Amino acid sequence: MKVGFIGLGAMGSAMASNLIKAGHEVTVWNRSTAPTEPLASLGARVVKSPDRAVLGEVLFSMLANDQAVRDIFIGGGLLDAMDKGLVHVNHATISVSLARELGVEHASRGLDYVAAPVFGRPDVAAAGRLNILAAGKAHVIERVRPLLEVMGSRIWPLGDAPDRANVVKIAGNFMLGAAIESMAEASALARAHGVSAADFLEVMTSTLFASPAYQGYATLIAEQRYTPAGFALPLGYKDIGLALSAADATRVPLPLASLLHDTLLEALSAGDEDVDWSIMAQVAARRAHLDERKL
Amino acid sequence: MKVGFIGLGAMGSAMASNLIKAGHEVTVWNRSTAPTEPLASLGARVVKSPDRAVLGEVLFSMLANDQAVRDIFIGGGLLDAMDKGLVHVNHATISVSLARELGVEHASRGLDYVAAPVFGRPDVAAAGRLNILAAGKAHVIERVRPLLEVMGSRIWPLGDAPDRANVVKIAGNFMLGAAIESMAEASALARAHGVSAADFLEVMTSTLFASPAYQGYATLIAEQRYTPAGFALPLGYKDIGLALSAADATRVPLPLASLLHDTLLEALSAGDEDVDWSIMAQVAARRAHLDERKL
Amino acid sequence: MKVGFIGLGAMGSAMASNLIKAGHEVTVWNRSTAPTEPLASLGARVVKSPDRAVLGEVLFSMLANDQAVRDIFIGGGLLDAMDKGLVHVNHATISVSLARELGVEHASRGLDYVAAPVFGRPDVAAAGRLNILAAGKAHVIERVRPLLEVMGSRIWPLGDAPDRANVVKIAGNFMLGAAIESMAEASALARAHGVSAADFLEVMTSTLFASPAYQGYATLIAEQRYTPAGFALPLGYKDIGLALSAADATRVPLPLASLLHDTLLEALSAGDEDVDWSIMAQVAARRAHLDERKL
Amino acid sequence: MKVGFIGLGAMGSAMASNLIKAGHEVTVWNRSTAPTEPLASLGARVVKSPDRAVLGEVLFSMLANDQAVRDIFIGGGLLDAMDKGLVHVNHATISVSLARELGVEHASRGLDYVAAPVFGRPDVAAAGRLNILAAGKAHVIERVRPLLEVMGSRIWPLGDAPDRANVVKIAGNFMLGAAIESMAEASALARAHGVSAADFLEVMTSTLFASPAYQGYATLIAEQRYTPAGFALPLGYKDIGLALSAADATRVPLPLASLLHDTLLEALSAGDEDVDWSIMAQVAARRAHLDERKL
Repeated sequence: MKVGFIGLGAMGSAMASNLIKAGHEVTVWNRSTAPTEPLASLGARVVKSPDRAVLGEVLFSMLANDQAVRDIFIGGGLLDAMDKGLVHVNHATISVSLARELGVEHASRGLDYVAAPVFGRPDVAAAGRLNILAAGKAHVIERVRPLLEVMGSRIWPLGDAPDRANVVKIAGNFMLGAAIESMAEASALARAHGVSAADFLEVMTSTLFASPAYQGYATLIAEQRYTPAGFALPLGYKDIGLALSAADATRVPLPLASLLHDTLLEALSAGDEDVDWSIMAQVAARRAHLDERKL
Repeated sequence: MKVGFIGLGAMGSAMASNLIKAGHEVTVWNRSTAPTEPLASLGARVVKSPDRAVLGEVLFSMLANDQAVRDIFIGGGLLDAMDKGLVHVNHATISVSLARELGVEHASRGLDYVAAPVFGRPDVAAAGRLNILAAGKAHVIERVRPLLEVMGSRIWPLGDAPDRANVVKIAGNFMLGAAIESMAEASALARAHGVSAADFLEVMTSTLFASPAYQGYATLIAEQRYTPAGFALPLGYKDIGLALSAADATRVPLPLASLLHDTLLEALSAGDEDVDWSIMAQVAARRAHLDERKL
Repeated sequence: MKVGFIGLGAMGSAMASNLIKAGHEVTVWNRSTAPTEPLASLGARVVKSPDRAVLGEVLFSMLANDQAVRDIFIGGGLLDAMDKGLVHVNHATISVSLARELGVEHASRGLDYVAAPVFGRPDVAAAGRLNILAAGKAHVIERVRPLLEVMGSRIWPLGDAPDRANVVKIAGNFMLGAAIESMAEASALARAHGVSAADFLEVMTSTLFASPAYQGYATLIAEQRYTPAGFALPLGYKDIGLALSAADATRVPLPLASLLHDTLLEALSAGDEDVDWSIMAQVAARRAHLDERKL
Repeated sequence: MKVGFIGLGAMGSAMASNLIKAGHEVTVWNRSTAPTEPLASLGARVVKSPDRAVLGEVLFSMLANDQAVRDIFIGGGLLDAMDKGLVHVNHATISVSLARELGVEHASRGLDYVAAPVFGRPDVAAAGRLNILAAGKAHVIERVRPLLEVMGSRIWPLGDAPDRANVVKIAGNFMLGAAIESMAEASALARAHGVSAADFLEVMTSTLFASPAYQGYATLIAEQRYTPAGFALPLGYKDIGLALSAADATRVPLPLASLLHDTLLEALSAGDEDVDWSIMAQVAARRAHLDERKL
């Protein structure tokens, strides 16, 4: 199929690669050009402006945040450049309010829209093993399903309203943050009683919490290895902010999300942004002055 | 082997059953006599006071809390009734401070002591599939290992000091509480945006959080089914209290444990104790007045 | 002096009245016309658009929030309608970021700007007893000081940068919210032990906390009288939001502000907006189910 | 009148001095003897065991905490050494549960008991200007009122049940802690925006919060002067613990008290106990890394 793909960060590049490898004719665009090169060598057509990527049947986008999506699709007029009948599949983690707005904006132009945020890090994307949430009209999701299945191991249809997929993504990332904070605090407690974080977390992630999310972050926490960032601190902070905004809009108190926000802010105030958000474990240890105690 | 087992709640009964079925000669005692009957029919010898259960090589105990352990072993003098060389394997979830005290009390009497709290609910205990934490002298743990392996699928040696096993158990239960609170709040957020808790939690526990702990509690939360209690609210409240006490003693701030304490207290203040501690999800929904909004 | 005054809510009306009574020639504008009538009868000149209120030497504004200020001064072009040399005295409680933006916008047009948020409720404003924070160039503040002294009993110069006055106002309102929450929780504790909120708060506000802020709110809490709203719940929620935004922007964790945010959101989710923000005391009591217990 | 006074810390010494100076015949005892010397020189009779201080009509006690009260009155048998008809006036800040227990223990021995915790620091005690809470039988309070009026400027009768005075004291100290935390966080916010804590707090404590409690702590925070301790960190931590215990016993969630507990624990984990509990402001600044930013 002839498709476009814009937004070629680590995630977008891996996803677009899989589409190319599956034999689709993919036109790509990215703000900076460096990420387009490996895709070109795989056979992608590279264009110099996003409006030239919307000529196929489907446009995929994987942009960084609300601002980028808004700048390109609304401010930059990309929505107006799309032909009726084109499907826009938006993989970005954006706010519930922008998701809703985009639903309206696409509908008013006769464009089909699928909100399709994903769970999985770049290595999972590269393996084509993402979990892809999908909200939009059922027949539209079915139409793009073969393409989604190239990128993900499982597609989760979540109903018509696009913001349904985004709220699930946001609530899921909030749960990830909570899992990290709970390992951070529990490990601090264990360390203060002479049990290393590594020993403690090995038990926990081999038993009650034997799931990939826990296991991945437990390794980082046990080794106090926060660089290079798998999921950078500012992104985690942004995503907890999306949860709090979605909660404020519907008046749902989330004290645990507030706690995560405060912890991430404390980490950010230390000045180093280029760290994984599991640096929350360092905050928990610092609050207890564990390193000074040589535990 | 000839062993004793005292404390026959749902957990203790299941564990003692497995020892009997494995061919061991088990003498049992419990404060109330009803739970002894099924074990008697399996072949256990039932005695009327705990001091008559300490005649074998090993005494297992699975009592409810610090108070019960203290009343029987220290106040009731059971420690003084034990012969040198006997090994006491204490499966109870008790405080770090009592664990430490018991270590000293056993040592001063020449008794071997293994702190062996477990992870797993009664059905897991019945299946002999518990995860058993074990702290005590290595050669003592090795001596009782064949018996522990009858009750558990995996034994986790955690070093000499008995309180090391207890702090891991306490920190682990804290992580369970955190997992429940995160599902509770995240589901409230999803519901407020029109996604049912069941739909949301199915995605999460099939993907990032595909572990038994999450899956079990997700079912209760999705169905708002808090009775019968798998793990009763007052026990959860007690265990978070154990985490806070252990943290206070070593001056480790645990804001997430404080949050769980406050949520569980809010649940308790409603007056119903005979509910599962995943009732935290009801608290999250009530704070957002979700049921009144008919979401 | 010849001055303009726009924004005639309860606060603005009381402040403008005092200027008129002090003999100044005051031109007033308000979005809705009803509030202009009492001022007209005192001698104010009423105009139909805000740009006709900027003809004197000073323009006072007391608008509701960021949006209203932005709509009128930036979106509506009022800044462009002002003559060089005019002083704009902005009494509104606005965000630190808008305060900074307005500083730049005024300076680039050669307009003098004083950020002058106030402490005091409408009755205090009517009595001309406000505390007026004032940030802006010292000579400009001195120029308008005689006018400010008509409205306030004390002027607090806070330096040149306009946002300095706004951050003090925002941080002060945060402290007010904290005072209410502390009375709310402490009263719940007293009530649960059989001491009425009235008895408890009488002791506290006659001794350690014998200040107007505590005494005023203590009365509302003791009498559970949350209507009519002295300071409405949505405004309190907005102001705590301003504190959190200012804190986020400078990466200052404020866990107590987060707690207030969550409490106010819980109050708002009950659906009634037309109540005083001291309704926080009802939230504290509800979390403890005090009314059901008939304490 | 002939009275006894035991417990001669800074508070007790100042209170006993005033009784002596008012012409009463005071017998004093303290665990260490140094504090008895200045009182002896004022005319006090010094005894070597507490049971020799209970020979008069009234026994005042001002001991440090639950443990000290329990050790002397219950463990040490002092209650049994008292004659019927003697009134015990207990000024200590003790737990609600011990207050209740002491009420029962006195009554069962025919002893009159007045729980009389105080508000005021040592300098206020020395000036005879304490606020004295008083719970006990009305006629007993009236009997000791002339003595209390020597020590305090105002007596607050709070009903018959002794624990009523203690819960008010505990809830009041909780409110003090909340006031400090709110100044700590609000000052951190102001500092991050370039307004010094001194400038900010001067405005606040001259206007909305013009009460002695705020003014005293504001000075310490503005000057970052946490030694010598007016009210030591471990005592503040203990008192917030008393509030949480009283709340747990009656199932009243106090999220703000939990927050104070966590903040005080963070301060304690730094290792220095000999500081004022307003060191909470240092915790707030450290969480925002303000000093490293040189704000």
